[in-house]
Amino acid sequence: MRVPETAGSIRPGGRTARTREAVLAAVRETLGEPDAELTIPAVAQRAGVHPTTVYRRWRTIESLLLEVVVGDVRTSSPVPASGDLRADLTEYVGRLLTSLSGPHALGMLRALLAATRASTDPHDVMAIVQPRVDDFRAMLEAAGVTGVSGMQLVELVIAPAYLWAQLGAPLDPEHDTARLVDAVLAVVRATPAPDAADRTPEP
Amino acid sequence: MRVPETAGSIRPGGRTARTREAVLAAVRETLGEPDAELTIPAVAQRAGVHPTTVYRRWRTIESLLLEVVVGDVRTSSPVPASGDLRADLTEYVGRLLTSLSGPHALGMLRALLAATRASTDPHDVMAIVQPRVDDFRAMLEAAGVTGVSGMQLVELVIAPAYLWAQLGAPLDPEHDTARLVDAVLAVVRATPAPDAADRTPEP
Repeated sequence: MRVPETAGSIRPGGRTARTREAVLAAVRETLGEPDAELTIPAVAQRAGVHPTTVYRRWRTIESLLLEVVVGDVRTSSPVPASGDLRADLTEYVGRLLTSLSGPHALGMLRALLAATRASTDPHDVMAIVQPRVDDFRAMLEAAGVTGVSGMQLVELVIAPAYLWAQLGAPLDPEHDTARLVDAVLAVVRATPAPDAADRTPEP
Repeated sequence: MRVPETAGSIRPGGRTARTREAVLAAVRETLGEPDAELTIPAVAQRAGVHPTTVYRRWRTIESLLLEVVVGDVRTSSPVPASGDLRADLTEYVGRLLTSLSGPHALGMLRALLAATRASTDPHDVMAIVQPRVDDFRAMLEAAGVTGVSGMQLVELVIAPAYLWAQLGAPLDPEHDTARLVDAVLAVVRATPAPDAADRTPEP
């Protein structure tokens, strides 16, 4: 787990963005100390903010932890958007399958599921997933694809990768990347752009 | 949870199949009694078999529970194989999404994941998943599709359905069934049969 070089001096009552960064940095620091208590009060104290501020924004320690993990994954595993969809997908999917065949493969999914169970509002979790969906949309838009959404890319790529990883049989980056990429490209080819054709629903 | 009409009189030391049925029936009975202890010794006693027999076959209560749940799902939600792939998929996917938007939606997945965590051998879990993969293969074979495997149908249909359900935002049977079915059909159309063309791997 990455720990920032310096926590910096955080002024309580600063702007929302600064508070958020302080809290996320405090979570990363805490994760770097195996014996440290990972609770909202402990994180708030380390960040120099009032626990109520943290509770108001994240509600549970799980959803806070999730935001950290999702942010780290976005940083460490950016989604390319070069305009060449096959190349972008091949790079991204290969990296995803490699990470999911490693030892700490399911950290993000576990955090996501813990947050889901702890939350009473599904929108909390979807809000945290949304940045990754936006990354996918940027990849698709760079390639001029408008008929397939970022959500559908999640379904076609992330869903199978995580299902097999969860079942203890992760996909093989070398053999399975091309298959998942081909599936996306098949769906892209089969799905007209919304303005290029009127999609009538199946009977 | 369905409970068999009669547990019958089970003779210990009978054939393997009979022992298996007795143990599975004992699990179903136990699940029907909320206060009953769900452990391998308790199930073995109820089934009239020696605990060692149960440990040898299933190793953990989780994988035993999983076999019951998977069997029940196969019975209550058969996979059609009429030869009309779109019709079969639409029926199956509609049923799957409906069940996953209900209150006890994630029972099977939770059992599967608990078994995965409890097992040291991924083949244990894959062996339990295999019957469903075989059901899908039968659906594809009835429609003359040879380029896409039962495993790929799991990826294209079950993986997204479960991912959203796990995230607390299950797909809508009315709106999402056609989309998932279209994705499968796009991949089927894009994938030549293995003997119809030599599929060279992507460079």
